[in-house]
Amino acid sequence: MTINGKLLIGARAQYGASAPFRAIDPATGQHLEPAFGTANLDDAERACMLAQQAFDAYRDTSLEQRAAFLEQIAQNILDLGPVLIERAMQESGLPQARLEGERGRTVGQLRLFAKVVRDGRWLGTALDSALPDRTPPRPDLRLRKIGLGPVVVFGASNFPLAFSVAGGDTASALAAGCPVVVKAHGAHPGTSELVGKAVMAAVASCGFPEGVFSLLHGDGRTIGQALVSHPAIKAVGFTGSRQGGMALVRTAAARPEPIPVYAEMSSINPVFVLPGAMGEKAGQIGTGFIDSLTLGSGQFCTNPGLVIAVEGEGLDKFIDAAATALQGKVGSTMLTPGIHAAYTSAVERLSGAAGVSLVARGQCGTTACAGQAALFVTDAANFLANPQLEEEIFGASSLVVRCTGAAQLRQIAEHLDGQLTATMFLTESDRDAALELLPALERKAGRILVNGYPTGVEVAHAMVHGGPFPATSDSRSTSVGAAAIDRFLRPVSYQDLPSWLLPAAIKDDNPLGLWRVRDGELVKA
Amino acid sequence: MTINGKLLIGARAQYGASAPFRAIDPATGQHLEPAFGTANLDDAERACMLAQQAFDAYRDTSLEQRAAFLEQIAQNILDLGPVLIERAMQESGLPQARLEGERGRTVGQLRLFAKVVRDGRWLGTALDSALPDRTPPRPDLRLRKIGLGPVVVFGASNFPLAFSVAGGDTASALAAGCPVVVKAHGAHPGTSELVGKAVMAAVASCGFPEGVFSLLHGDGRTIGQALVSHPAIKAVGFTGSRQGGMALVRTAAARPEPIPVYAEMSSINPVFVLPGAMGEKAGQIGTGFIDSLTLGSGQFCTNPGLVIAVEGEGLDKFIDAAATALQGKVGSTMLTPGIHAAYTSAVERLSGAAGVSLVARGQCGTTACAGQAALFVTDAANFLANPQLEEEIFGASSLVVRCTGAAQLRQIAEHLDGQLTATMFLTESDRDAALELLPALERKAGRILVNGYPTGVEVAHAMVHGGPFPATSDSRSTSVGAAAIDRFLRPVSYQDLPSWLLPAAIKDDNPLGLWRVRDGELVKA
Repeated sequence: MTINGKLLIGARAQYGASAPFRAIDPATGQHLEPAFGTANLDDAERACMLAQQAFDAYRDTSLEQRAAFLEQIAQNILDLGPVLIERAMQESGLPQARLEGERGRTVGQLRLFAKVVRDGRWLGTALDSALPDRTPPRPDLRLRKIGLGPVVVFGASNFPLAFSVAGGDTASALAAGCPVVVKAHGAHPGTSELVGKAVMAAVASCGFPEGVFSLLHGDGRTIGQALVSHPAIKAVGFTGSRQGGMALVRTAAARPEPIPVYAEMSSINPVFVLPGAMGEKAGQIGTGFIDSLTLGSGQFCTNPGLVIAVEGEGLDKFIDAAATALQGKVGSTMLTPGIHAAYTSAVERLSGAAGVSLVARGQCGTTACAGQAALFVTDAANFLANPQLEEEIFGASSLVVRCTGAAQLRQIAEHLDGQLTATMFLTESDRDAALELLPALERKAGRILVNGYPTGVEVAHAMVHGGPFPATSDSRSTSVGAAAIDRFLRPVSYQDLPSWLLPAAIKDDNPLGLWRVRDGELVKA
Repeated sequence: MTINGKLLIGARAQYGASAPFRAIDPATGQHLEPAFGTANLDDAERACMLAQQAFDAYRDTSLEQRAAFLEQIAQNILDLGPVLIERAMQESGLPQARLEGERGRTVGQLRLFAKVVRDGRWLGTALDSALPDRTPPRPDLRLRKIGLGPVVVFGASNFPLAFSVAGGDTASALAAGCPVVVKAHGAHPGTSELVGKAVMAAVASCGFPEGVFSLLHGDGRTIGQALVSHPAIKAVGFTGSRQGGMALVRTAAARPEPIPVYAEMSSINPVFVLPGAMGEKAGQIGTGFIDSLTLGSGQFCTNPGLVIAVEGEGLDKFIDAAATALQGKVGSTMLTPGIHAAYTSAVERLSGAAGVSLVARGQCGTTACAGQAALFVTDAANFLANPQLEEEIFGASSLVVRCTGAAQLRQIAEHLDGQLTATMFLTESDRDAALELLPALERKAGRILVNGYPTGVEVAHAMVHGGPFPATSDSRSTSVGAAAIDRFLRPVSYQDLPSWLLPAAIKDDNPLGLWRVRDGELVKA
């Protein structure tokens, strides 16, 4: 399949009439062919109107049809073969093995949502029987969930496959019965086009209305804002910077009809090393921590940007081991020149911050945008007094905070902003400290880990990739895992409908074989 | 129990130091004793801080403890006896039977949430087994939901018991494990104090931390805004005007940490009478419609403010029957002088609107704030051209829209804003029209009724009292029924926790006997 730089609006591929641009290979700084035309406001309008027109027919598809569609997208992505991986490598600077793994994750995600759709628990069906003899009589009431409506998804830079055109947001919105308009990320337009065509082909081969999916290139400030402002759009999925996310939140809130925005924005993923664990395995934790910190140049939302521990021999050993490990890490290419520049200047700023000392740097890489990892240390009093030390640095930079005792560990936990993850390293001997810390971490984070590193985010039923603000704009949900579908649903109650008018999910004889809450009890009969 | 005009801040009843006020009996316009002191900003601060301090201990109570607490509140309300009903009658102008029914509803609601809490499905537990031999190994992942944190609840004027101090918002927030700070409605401060003391006594007798519940009197613009702005507060429940709700939404969005607001605001609850039904039973539908319209002086969120039907003999018969029924209805006391004045001037405005004719008025009541019901008619073209005809009039006023045919029925359905309810009257012969209308109504409303009137809102598992904006500020939820608890929850994932650190809900041996999603399958083992 060749990349020709076109927008995909419903069934039509057309060259965007606005400011053309080329992708940049961050390893070389060179532009890549071809040029991509960007969307104008008419293109955005057309994509949104097609999505609106497609909504009723798409949400009316059977669970099986919708599941098969998601599986077809997965197959079409696999069928793209090496061309997809090669283009993604060029556009992102990420290595082949990582992108092949990410393709597996993307395909696995689509297949998981196919299973979720078939299973139908997301419909949240409940039936309350009529009680005609009660005073007053109780009507027959039945509840199911339906899609919110067309969703705009913003591709993320750091997962050009798994959180981009057919990534988690798109898969969960499509699973929920919502048409999707993707605003492609400018860093990987070719990858986006290839995946977009895979989705478009699945829409066609399943016989679905063309408006189920569109893909636009364009600037976030113009096309992105136009999409979020459009009356046909009913929800937004975004992964990126806090500034970008909050701009969308503000736009969505200012609409005549405000809509939900699921923005995954900013997290420093604190790692608490409790005294018992530090005493037993400081060196091992320190080495593992550097592996997690430098994975993918530190460009994970769950990158561990903060380590909190009580000062002493153990912490010194941890820092020594981390420093040694870090000095052996060669910087790899970061995603874009912009991200590389922002990382470099943030590390420079932190180097000059009062009360902060550099522990070690990684080795310089050889590519144009190679990030050089960095580890800093400060004390708890300084950290607590300087909110800017809590700001996310996107890339492989982390800060160790020395505490005077367990009370200060808890003080820092209470002080922290909302996070995607919070980690404790502990042993049996840390039982009391861990039990005391846990409630604070539950209030602060979407996922709590013990004796592990937060960078791996499993696509599963029990995963939460979310958390209190500013980790996300909506802590009531997750963007990774089966529960992500819940973001794009709303409940509808049906009172005294004749059986011929009832949707299948809530018909008497349970033709879909769903788990349903019947008069308060969960049953499958 | 005597009413002494005090604020209830945690375990302390104290007289508010700010501007004292007295309730007004809307039937006479007279002030009622005693005077209520209002809260100042220090009082708001103290209530919020107590709620924050109580949160961890309260959410850590067992399901049984929390359920028993809700049941104790219900019992304490019943134990107030006739004094509660008498005071509520004086403050609201609502008749005894209605308030006794509403007390039953309030108590039933608390008991339903006790059952919901014990059942534990709201915890949304999921467990994914570790796969240590996979490459990379999969960790052990477990998910449960926890409360968002302290919630501010605004008492509603129109349900002084069922949607006020211990009403649906409070019951569902407490069920979710969230402490509650109530901003009492100024129209029924005595009723609020009585119910507040019933909650306060239950907190004490259950041995819970005092901050689980506080009750403040004060102005929405000062105390209400201060509560919503306070960093300890994590969500808001509100039922009232669109203007009031949107002010809270804006304040919550402008906080350094934005929080969700569940505001139930504005709905005109369209009733579509399809041609077959109109042909068969126009008179009967018209008479029943007036009963629903005038129930409780039309002061229900689900009051039917709009009737849409195709012009012809049937519609004429409907209008005749409705007019006759309306002329026999004597206006009863409205909730407050302010609501009565707003209703009167809105009806006056509608009487003078271009293209709108008065069909009939009800009889004048004899009390100070008696509302005089009104029915108007217009045609579809005029309705579609004048958005102000779609604005909610709070009270017993409704507008009939004459359509030229079925296509115009659908056009109006598509044109309407979001609604709490949408109703169809139909017979077998309306099958095609109903099937065509249903998808539009699903997009517009939280509850769809057939051959009934929307004013009754059952407290049940399959109820949705919610809907797209501006019916509510968040269509993803309901404020009535078992699912209301979901509004105040967020998911937390636990990765590789040792068993001694795991919350009971997600321990291996399922000590709470919950339904759980284990490796994707719903099981109770």
